[in-house]
Amino acid sequence: RGIRVGYTPDVLTDATAELTVALLLAACRRLPEAVEEVKNGGWTTWKPLWMCGYGLSDSTVGIVGLGRIGQAVARRLRPFGVRKFLYTGSCPKPESAAEFDAEFVPLARLAKESDFVVVTCALTPATQGMCNKDFFGRMKKTAVFINTSRGAVVNQEDLYKVLANGEIAAAGLDVTTPEPLPTNHPLLSLKNCVILPHIGSATYATRSTMAVLAAENLLAGLRGDPMPHELVL
Amino acid sequence: RGIRVGYTPDVLTDATAELTVALLLAACRRLPEAVEEVKNGGWTTWKPLWMCGYGLSDSTVGIVGLGRIGQAVARRLRPFGVRKFLYTGSCPKPESAAEFDAEFVPLARLAKESDFVVVTCALTPATQGMCNKDFFGRMKKTAVFINTSRGAVVNQEDLYKVLANGEIAAAGLDVTTPEPLPTNHPLLSLKNCVILPHIGSATYATRSTMAVLAAENLLAGLRGDPMPHELVL
Repeated sequence: RGIRVGYTPDVLTDATAELTVALLLAACRRLPEAVEEVKNGGWTTWKPLWMCGYGLSDSTVGIVGLGRIGQAVARRLRPFGVRKFLYTGSCPKPESAAEFDAEFVPLARLAKESDFVVVTCALTPATQGMCNKDFFGRMKKTAVFINTSRGAVVNQEDLYKVLANGEIAAAGLDVTTPEPLPTNHPLLSLKNCVILPHIGSATYATRSTMAVLAAENLLAGLRGDPMPHELVL
Repeated sequence: RGIRVGYTPDVLTDATAELTVALLLAACRRLPEAVEEVKNGGWTTWKPLWMCGYGLSDSTVGIVGLGRIGQAVARRLRPFGVRKFLYTGSCPKPESAAEFDAEFVPLARLAKESDFVVVTCALTPATQGMCNKDFFGRMKKTAVFINTSRGAVVNQEDLYKVLANGEIAAAGLDVTTPEPLPTNHPLLSLKNCVILPHIGSATYATRSTMAVLAAENLLAGLRGDPMPHELVL
């Protein structure tokens, strides 16, 4: 008999969707850069376009992977005045998309038409390296790219080039390759790239729920009972 | 005949509400601190409670001043799983509150029961210095305080003390006294205080709309016509 494995599904959807929206807003409204300007004395008199960013009002948002987290992100973004949701993935999901009137489009069209691209898909052979030079090259110069899925979905060298050259406006990453990202990584030198240390599920409430589920799995396993959430392969 | 004055009302509601939510999420999910940890090598292996914050799921949000911006903030926060909205102000506004099922309460009760306090009121003799030692002393230790109205609504010395002593969890300010805030101000030494350089309306779209309205006011004034938006005292 092999080793039984428990896991803690679903419980981090809300915390991760919340962090995704937090990261999107921080990137598009340039929060880390603005915080720095306050500290270093860059904040002086009012100037018409100083620290301006791109807001969500009347925007098109493209979601790559409209699963539980992608839907929870769309639900939170909608009241910010989003005009149109696009999504892509392995197949259309009309039932999930109906709530947002989201349109299923190929990846290339999503890149081309979105003001905000939000990646919330699984890492699979099909998605590995999917956000590459070709993908970023189709995006608008004013667009913002957000990834809270897995770092390997993104070609980081290609992302660095488009950010450094101003071919897209900004990026926000909660996941990188590798993790932790070396502190001398070129992406960390860019003002228009916000990088977080994989804190998608980092709320006290979520981590507590995860701990309780893990303990219940463990106790059931020790008793030889069925686990509340057991990985069955 | 005196000097005619034009202004640009309403056009910054959406941008300011968006920035208020951005600041709230940055403060409660500790984004500037997390960005810093990535840069300074503080991001190492996974630890259960590292960089944990307080999320909006199942929270009580208290809005001080349920005007246009306060309502726009509540509308954006609702899908994050807020359980209950409270609000306070000079009088109940049942028509504005109905959309959020928000309850009108005295300021002291709002401070005591809210997990997030969001200040979006006007600066008046009644609100000047309103967020003081007494107010902060009623707040929960796990609560987050956000001000995007005017700096003088807050007693900054009292805010510094409760943040430094851990009597509240975090604060986010887009407005301060004075502006710009001196770079050696004690609030800037706190990890749990996120300070932005008054960028509420700083989106390219909003500033462009403001510029067009200002120009139209000016041209009408020069022609001796009624201004599209003229201040009448």
